[in-house]
Amino acid sequence: MTTETRNFELRLKQRPGSDVSPDDFTLGDSPIEAPQAGQVLVKVEWLSMDTYLYERTIGDAMGPAIPLGSRMPGRALGTVVSGGLPAGTLVSGDFGWQKYATVDASAATALERNAAPDTWYLSALGAPGLTAWLALHKVLKPAAGKTLLVSGAAGTVGSLVGQLARELGLNVIGIAGGAERCKWLMQHGYQAVIDRKTVTDWKQAMLAAAPNGIDFYYDNAGGRILEAAVQAIAPGGRIVLCGHSGEYTSPTAKLTATDLLYKGLTLHGFRVWDFTAQFKEARAALLDLIIQKKLHMEETIHHGLASAPAAMDAMLNGNGLGKHLVKVHED
Amino acid sequence: MTTETRNFELRLKQRPGSDVSPDDFTLGDSPIEAPQAGQVLVKVEWLSMDTYLYERTIGDAMGPAIPLGSRMPGRALGTVVSGGLPAGTLVSGDFGWQKYATVDASAATALERNAAPDTWYLSALGAPGLTAWLALHKVLKPAAGKTLLVSGAAGTVGSLVGQLARELGLNVIGIAGGAERCKWLMQHGYQAVIDRKTVTDWKQAMLAAAPNGIDFYYDNAGGRILEAAVQAIAPGGRIVLCGHSGEYTSPTAKLTATDLLYKGLTLHGFRVWDFTAQFKEARAALLDLIIQKKLHMEETIHHGLASAPAAMDAMLNGNGLGKHLVKVHED
Repeated sequence: MTTETRNFELRLKQRPGSDVSPDDFTLGDSPIEAPQAGQVLVKVEWLSMDTYLYERTIGDAMGPAIPLGSRMPGRALGTVVSGGLPAGTLVSGDFGWQKYATVDASAATALERNAAPDTWYLSALGAPGLTAWLALHKVLKPAAGKTLLVSGAAGTVGSLVGQLARELGLNVIGIAGGAERCKWLMQHGYQAVIDRKTVTDWKQAMLAAAPNGIDFYYDNAGGRILEAAVQAIAPGGRIVLCGHSGEYTSPTAKLTATDLLYKGLTLHGFRVWDFTAQFKEARAALLDLIIQKKLHMEETIHHGLASAPAAMDAMLNGNGLGKHLVKVHED
Repeated sequence: MTTETRNFELRLKQRPGSDVSPDDFTLGDSPIEAPQAGQVLVKVEWLSMDTYLYERTIGDAMGPAIPLGSRMPGRALGTVVSGGLPAGTLVSGDFGWQKYATVDASAATALERNAAPDTWYLSALGAPGLTAWLALHKVLKPAAGKTLLVSGAAGTVGSLVGQLARELGLNVIGIAGGAERCKWLMQHGYQAVIDRKTVTDWKQAMLAAAPNGIDFYYDNAGGRILEAAVQAIAPGGRIVLCGHSGEYTSPTAKLTATDLLYKGLTLHGFRVWDFTAQFKEARAALLDLIIQKKLHMEETIHHGLASAPAAMDAMLNGNGLGKHLVKVHED
């Protein structure tokens, strides 16, 4: 049992706008709940910052909006303190923005420690890694030598997609925000990078970056970037829609049916939970690449539970590279 | 050699609007050209009325706009009069709106007569049949017991799709224009039919027609019907875009990216010429169904070359069932 007796949590006070502020949350505390039969008490070590969570913070998305006044949910990594699993077991689950979680044992997935840092269970070996690998291998199915455009290229999913695509022998063109992130991508094997903070004509920028044409587009942005990609992509091209971070404060993309028809394009709205039957295959492939040191996850660490709003804001607005994590117990 | 010496052809005078009128064309004549070495003289027997041809008559579409003043192109069926193939050979090709065509032998495909009427080479065994079969079997790949919605259901492609889908054990819901066509569909195994001439709320009409949900949508219409289908289709649904007859005088469909993403939909813009490697398989399957009398092609016949504009208009505006054909030499 932990020596601490109080639990702290962040509750949603008001819905954030395009920036996430600590003022959007309140800090609450309560006694740590002892686990009942069939439960475990988890010390929440790492909070995962993800776009899906921001989407549910501002309103309905793939899941219902988080009710105002309630504790923030959210994927996390922790260690078992007591209850139905051995103390110290590494577990993942939707533990939420709190220091300790008392949950049903079935809601805590025990994880084996492996060649990767534990935290990669929230990125390369978690839902983002599965999303990157499955959308690439099971939906786009690109052939070596072809060209893939990926938006959100410096983010968690995007940076994994870029590495996996290069491993497949693709030419990869990235879209990212800001000179620093673009420079980082160019140092990591991208053929060309488009800085979304300086682009004026998206279609032209894409065509200029891909003189041999764009065959595949991995969309994490939506909005006008997606609209332009439909214009710029080569006939027969395939597009997978995995995120829409460009649409939180701008209108959603409106796609013209005749563009899809005349160019023979395929669009696939990707939901990772539609592919559970292939998770095992994807995880094995991802771990194998990690062991071979062919897949790396850049991380940006935020310190302490109270930093979670700032961490979400940084994830959202592209301040920092790769996966944004909150180290909960380091205040 | 034919005893006739003059050839007659229809030339495009002006671009039609939503109706096609004889006034949009002029009749021209010229001597029948004797075939040179490597050519054949074809007596054009049947003209095929197709939406692609109307699209190229009014402007750029999948192919360039037909130049004003030039002879109307168009898929057709004929018999060899003289030249590099035996006289009487049944041939298909883009012979255009004329009574005789003198073309390179490579532009005339010799056809074997089989269990189907010759004219079915322009429908069930031609591009429409390939489009119906390939988009269904190679793109939508529906499982038995699921529900397929098809627009343009009383047209050439649509009526083939309906029959092929029922053969696969699907529940089929059709969209067609007018009470007569809807009645005809209900007599041919459709589970429900939506009359596009009386619908006001498309999404509601689709949901009402498919109480168990729509799993697949075969789109020949585009426009607001496609927009509504994206709204009405079940999560994980698949849509194939094969035509857009609802968009010639109305705006093209604008599809909302988040609808595709949140519902995990797949959209595929289908161009039959991307599937040439599978034509042989498709033709064999179609012919087999015809031999088993499981596939029938309704035809609406128009008489004489001069009836071609009226035939195109009838095809376009849904006057008559199934395939519209012009019997060229029956004035």
